[in-house]
Amino acid sequence: MTEFPVRADTLITNARILTMDAEFTEFAEGALAITGGRITALGPVTDAARTQADEVVDAAGSLLLPGFVNTHCHAAMVLFRGLADDRPLDGFLKAVWAAEAAHVTPDTVRAGATLGLAEMALGGVTHVVDMYFHPDATIEAAGKVGVGLTSGPVFIGFDGIDHLPWPERLRFAEDFVARHRGTEGLELMLMPHSAYTLDAEKLREVAAMAGRLGLPVHIHAAEAPSEMRLVADQHGTTPARILDTCGILQPGTLLAHAVHLDDAEIALLAERGVTVAHCPLSNAKLASGMARLKALRAAGLTLSLGTDGASSGNDLDMFKTMRQTAYLAILATGEPDVLPARDIVAMATRGGAAAAGLGARKGVLAPGMDADLMLVDLAAPHLIPAYDPYSTLVYAAGREDVRDVFARGRRIVASRRLVAGISDEIAAVRAVAARIAENAVGKQAKYPIRQ
Amino acid sequence: MTEFPVRADTLITNARILTMDAEFTEFAEGALAITGGRITALGPVTDAARTQADEVVDAAGSLLLPGFVNTHCHAAMVLFRGLADDRPLDGFLKAVWAAEAAHVTPDTVRAGATLGLAEMALGGVTHVVDMYFHPDATIEAAGKVGVGLTSGPVFIGFDGIDHLPWPERLRFAEDFVARHRGTEGLELMLMPHSAYTLDAEKLREVAAMAGRLGLPVHIHAAEAPSEMRLVADQHGTTPARILDTCGILQPGTLLAHAVHLDDAEIALLAERGVTVAHCPLSNAKLASGMARLKALRAAGLTLSLGTDGASSGNDLDMFKTMRQTAYLAILATGEPDVLPARDIVAMATRGGAAAAGLGARKGVLAPGMDADLMLVDLAAPHLIPAYDPYSTLVYAAGREDVRDVFARGRRIVASRRLVAGISDEIAAVRAVAARIAENAVGKQAKYPIRQ
Repeated sequence: MTEFPVRADTLITNARILTMDAEFTEFAEGALAITGGRITALGPVTDAARTQADEVVDAAGSLLLPGFVNTHCHAAMVLFRGLADDRPLDGFLKAVWAAEAAHVTPDTVRAGATLGLAEMALGGVTHVVDMYFHPDATIEAAGKVGVGLTSGPVFIGFDGIDHLPWPERLRFAEDFVARHRGTEGLELMLMPHSAYTLDAEKLREVAAMAGRLGLPVHIHAAEAPSEMRLVADQHGTTPARILDTCGILQPGTLLAHAVHLDDAEIALLAERGVTVAHCPLSNAKLASGMARLKALRAAGLTLSLGTDGASSGNDLDMFKTMRQTAYLAILATGEPDVLPARDIVAMATRGGAAAAGLGARKGVLAPGMDADLMLVDLAAPHLIPAYDPYSTLVYAAGREDVRDVFARGRRIVASRRLVAGISDEIAAVRAVAARIAENAVGKQAKYPIRQ
Repeated sequence: MTEFPVRADTLITNARILTMDAEFTEFAEGALAITGGRITALGPVTDAARTQADEVVDAAGSLLLPGFVNTHCHAAMVLFRGLADDRPLDGFLKAVWAAEAAHVTPDTVRAGATLGLAEMALGGVTHVVDMYFHPDATIEAAGKVGVGLTSGPVFIGFDGIDHLPWPERLRFAEDFVARHRGTEGLELMLMPHSAYTLDAEKLREVAAMAGRLGLPVHIHAAEAPSEMRLVADQHGTTPARILDTCGILQPGTLLAHAVHLDDAEIALLAERGVTVAHCPLSNAKLASGMARLKALRAAGLTLSLGTDGASSGNDLDMFKTMRQTAYLAILATGEPDVLPARDIVAMATRGGAAAAGLGARKGVLAPGMDADLMLVDLAAPHLIPAYDPYSTLVYAAGREDVRDVFARGRRIVASRRLVAGISDEIAAVRAVAARIAENAVGKQAKYPIRQ
């Protein structure tokens, strides 16, 4: 372990540290030093006695662990949170598409994404892989809230609610990547929507662009029975197979959902080095199904967790996502011990970073890594006693127990409050929500996709 | 609607009121008056303009709804919260039984139940049906925290961790009922554990006592595959059928779990007027299965929600219970619209009161009903926007959004803080938990039940 420095920007003391490294190394009474946005040292608090810091955070009574990496989200869709519950999938889709077609603009995306990212930050999320139209607006929102972001251009095979015909969409993508490559705190992926909204030729074009630009791909795949039918009709095969045929399945390709896969497809995904964003809250609420987590783990895939958008969530809560991951894994197998709690916490942290291609910099507390981390206060009645910290995190803790959050060394949540002021964006969301509520009933959308 | 009185003990103003009555009556900007522990009036806030009250609570920006009725709990088992996760059912049971046998006393039950009831109060629960050893200790705890309680003597067919042989157990039960009948805020049931811990003769004795004392029965039934096998071995039939044969299934009998039922059994339960405490968190975590909610509803049974004990939960959260109710109903049927959110809120309030035999006094906001209610603050980012209040409650809100809780007119949670001081009990729980952690590994219990 690196020696503690004489000086640090921030020193967190007296925490129970869960490093979430491969050995699940812990420090019962630990300290962690941050300088320049990175972790410079961590270890027993006694080792840090001589460290001077501009800011000392006493974390007695708290767990200190890596921030969550949410690997599949559409943050701006908080605009449609709970707009279309309690109806079959097609009714849900119609309501959401109608609202998107009428109300999604760069301004509403900026306001919605700010609110969504704020919600996530308050719940311990320090990095989000976000797929949505007008990604520049979400990038602005992430900068304001302070959460790390993986963003990218969206590809769909028709004009879409951003009104880009395909050739312009390709030019937008190249331009977007050129403008944002190297931006601090921003990672890039190409984000084709799915095999049911893109034909084979367009999927190949995206795969070629990804190769040319050296960027990974994030895509929805094998989410729901309805998708399986659509893809069978359009491509004569399954989502996993057509994506492979078109060159989309490359090392680092991040598949959202990956629920409906046969054994051969799971073996294929493992061979290709694909990673998975498991989204159990969305999969349960929309009756999409229960992913084959046990088989995916056995095949050695890198697994991570996503909240999906709040239109199907209806919130963006990685604690509930962890808990639901356990429940679906258990119910799908009948095995209460199929997925230990600490492995689920690993999916939400180390696994998320690895799935997003950021495993060398995030997801584990270690010297040299980004200072993306959270303090979870164990004082609430629902956390007493806490025999095992991983069980406590998965089965009892909630976003309300997150006390402080640091992203790249910057405190973005302090004493349960967001540091950034977002009252203007909340007012903007309320205003557009009032218009959405007025218009929601009975409208039909012309865009046959769900983002 | 009753006219607002000139005077009230408490007047809550400016709330969005969800009465949870059969018509789901709402008041967009409502007021509610409380006097002597009961609701004396509610309606539009303008109607309350002339009401003077000792205490006025401005609830602008909050939902006001009935408190949750948790119809199946073992509050004191917070002592074993998360002690035995991630292992098969038999390993779980052995660890918990060993800990119970070694550490359950009236003192530890009092401390544990205080903590568990505090957790529930903070999460909007105003009444709990609680089954556990040393029920007098839990009654004391409920008095301290201020939550309403349905308690009762536990019946198991062997000595149990309270060390009562059967004849003494029967005497204890009669005495318990005699001592507590008519106590303010306390309701009574007889609580035989299950068909796998009681033989037919003992089940008949309990049924006879219930008839003689005029009390309803609360019992575990048809929870898990392992129980189905045990009951088949012991009784040659199913839990529902042997309970009926022994006279346990009477109007008002409250069955916990009711997961494994065939069509004929569901029809039988409906005919008998039995009510159900659905416990989806426990059922998911222990791989017990998914209850047939759609069929139970279609048969007309009164359905309610329970958290079960924190040893299998691992918390006592009715918000998560509501959400999981939706998920299991959807996953079990593949129908996202199988159980509307407002019907789930009704299960947690009106349904809970009805299932516990308290429908005439609790579970609905109406003049003359007990003032059991909560305010849910809609200000948090994860609750914006809120298109539909029921969807917001089931799919986005959490215990952290509960601002104030009143039980029989007494404020037991104020501005998110428990009014009662419970630091002594928390210290006692931490002390016993330290001893439990030391002793937990490798012990075997001699009591073949799970409470």
